[in-house]
Amino acid sequence: MPARSPRGSAGRPMSAAPPRRAGIVGTGLIGGSIGMALRARGWHVTGTDRDAARAARAVELGALDELGVDPDAEITFVATPVRAIPDAARAALDAGPGIVTDVGSVKGSVVAAVDSPRFVGGHPMAGSEQEGVDGADPDLFSGAVWVLTPTPRTDDEAFSRTASIVRDLGADLVALDPEHHDSLVAVVSHVPHLTAAALMQLADRAAAEHRALLRLAAGGFRDMTRIAAGHPGIWPDICGENREAIVEVLDRLVDALREVRGIVAADDRARLLDVLDRSRAARLNLPSRVVQPEQLCEMRVPVPDRAGVLAEVTTLAGRLDVNIADLEIAHSALGDEGVLILLVEDTSAERLRAALVEAGYRPSVSPLE
Amino acid sequence: MPARSPRGSAGRPMSAAPPRRAGIVGTGLIGGSIGMALRARGWHVTGTDRDAARAARAVELGALDELGVDPDAEITFVATPVRAIPDAARAALDAGPGIVTDVGSVKGSVVAAVDSPRFVGGHPMAGSEQEGVDGADPDLFSGAVWVLTPTPRTDDEAFSRTASIVRDLGADLVALDPEHHDSLVAVVSHVPHLTAAALMQLADRAAAEHRALLRLAAGGFRDMTRIAAGHPGIWPDICGENREAIVEVLDRLVDALREVRGIVAADDRARLLDVLDRSRAARLNLPSRVVQPEQLCEMRVPVPDRAGVLAEVTTLAGRLDVNIADLEIAHSALGDEGVLILLVEDTSAERLRAALVEAGYRPSVSPLE
Repeated sequence: MPARSPRGSAGRPMSAAPPRRAGIVGTGLIGGSIGMALRARGWHVTGTDRDAARAARAVELGALDELGVDPDAEITFVATPVRAIPDAARAALDAGPGIVTDVGSVKGSVVAAVDSPRFVGGHPMAGSEQEGVDGADPDLFSGAVWVLTPTPRTDDEAFSRTASIVRDLGADLVALDPEHHDSLVAVVSHVPHLTAAALMQLADRAAAEHRALLRLAAGGFRDMTRIAAGHPGIWPDICGENREAIVEVLDRLVDALREVRGIVAADDRARLLDVLDRSRAARLNLPSRVVQPEQLCEMRVPVPDRAGVLAEVTTLAGRLDVNIADLEIAHSALGDEGVLILLVEDTSAERLRAALVEAGYRPSVSPLE
Repeated sequence: MPARSPRGSAGRPMSAAPPRRAGIVGTGLIGGSIGMALRARGWHVTGTDRDAARAARAVELGALDELGVDPDAEITFVATPVRAIPDAARAALDAGPGIVTDVGSVKGSVVAAVDSPRFVGGHPMAGSEQEGVDGADPDLFSGAVWVLTPTPRTDDEAFSRTASIVRDLGADLVALDPEHHDSLVAVVSHVPHLTAAALMQLADRAAAEHRALLRLAAGGFRDMTRIAAGHPGIWPDICGENREAIVEVLDRLVDALREVRGIVAADDRARLLDVLDRSRAARLNLPSRVVQPEQLCEMRVPVPDRAGVLAEVTTLAGRLDVNIADLEIAHSALGDEGVLILLVEDTSAERLRAALVEAGYRPSVSPLE
């Protein structure tokens, strides 16, 4: 890890310990919000943007302490459009010895393109109706899910430190492997977005014939098409990079709609009720909001000191939807084995424990004092 | 029109004029809300429900003055499930000389099945997360669109009186012919509902493989699937009665999604941007909320005293999305010609005037004093 710089941030009183240092590449809504959130926690944040005016605005709004590249940054957040991430991440890796992470909505192609143990793929699932750094908000990540996508190549220390910083910003950590991430966001984000656009197009064509349609478009329709009002600029990148998963999920959606069409055309009331009942149950089953768990227990997992163990255990927890409230690695003095200490919800601990046993680990669980 | 009963409502002080009398058939959320809204305006409301407990609850909650059928009702609102409307409407027409209207989400089949000049098809586009009479709210229709579907068979007086009552409940009147209504609600309500269910099913299947999906389902996905959480009970009726329009719109949606799929598969960024840009513009173009127009003008349209003229003029206004803030028919003493007086928004008056001229009318427009 890089040595921390002894300099205090300009205009901020020197405290006993020098501030931790971070870099931001791309100071839009997300990059700006990360900068504000870190600065609110005492970090010194340096950043750049392809657009000089936007970078200057980020300083003005308090998202950055200063412009530029900080070779002493402990961590650099790459918050550019998806296509630009690999180059920007490689440049950040070259600029210093710190960790580099990103915030792109697609992970498989990004993680494959940035081949460094110090790179940790990430995706904070937070957004805003606002756009650009003027919409930045230091509380944007509070209670939001922040996905990290460690791989067997990822350095354990880089991952656990990134996880700790992300959680410190108020986010709820979910570790997934990059491909799982991409197929899941195709289902819950990318295809819904394209579907909202398709519904809006249908309505637009109908409105051209019957303008009254605009006034009939009430709450449900407004809810369903709200995301279609967002700026389309980011979508060509996302659809390009996550093409395979999106096409597959679109095919599944078309199949599901054709099935519904067949049921309606046949006036098959029993089947229609069954489909709608199951959808309703699934919708009601969505967790209403990520909440900080109240009942935690500690799980200790002895792990061999080899690369990829942390990725394996945490992405297993992600697959099982086990919320990791905290994690830490205690290395043994001998250096060939360590202990991974996880804080997980009481209610899901057994699920994870059983899966770990099946995967050959020897976890132990104890209540948290 | 029926003579008004001289009786005052029980527990309510007699006022100089006897209260107007209304009937409700089916005291669920909508029927109950209509009862409450009418009673808040001094009406005496009598009602029935197939479910005796629900009817009793409607009295308890203040949605009805009394149980039963009032032969003196000036207007009866049929608020049963769609399939039950024709029989209930015919029974109400037989019970007395008053107007009968309904609140069903499908209009073509209902209007065709109830062949009386005293029947005015209706559809208040208001709902609630609540269900049943316990969710009833006297303000449910305030600012909501209430569609009426007059036909050439509809008695002008019955239509204009229904329109006046509906507006008095705070609703915004849109007159459409029944078939237009059905194809428009297929676009803005029925197909979106089925689409939300299809998206939820996809997510449910993905969640079975990767439970983390549930935690990735953020704001946009929640918005898009919210309506899938509603009780499915009403949908078999709606889909059965509006089958043709729904199947056609589902086909159009499938076509639109396959087009998007082709664009994504080909990584055709320019076309994707174009599709999303147009959808965005259409979404931003949705009126944000129905507001009472501030600038009105008066349009006087001499009309021959023949059936269907009012339906023709008002559904023309509906097609052109011209908001009718008020309407009245002044009959001439000779009885062969009358004048239809419409209050419409300044900004849309010219649109309606030109269309009426083209249809052979001689409208005149004057500013409202």
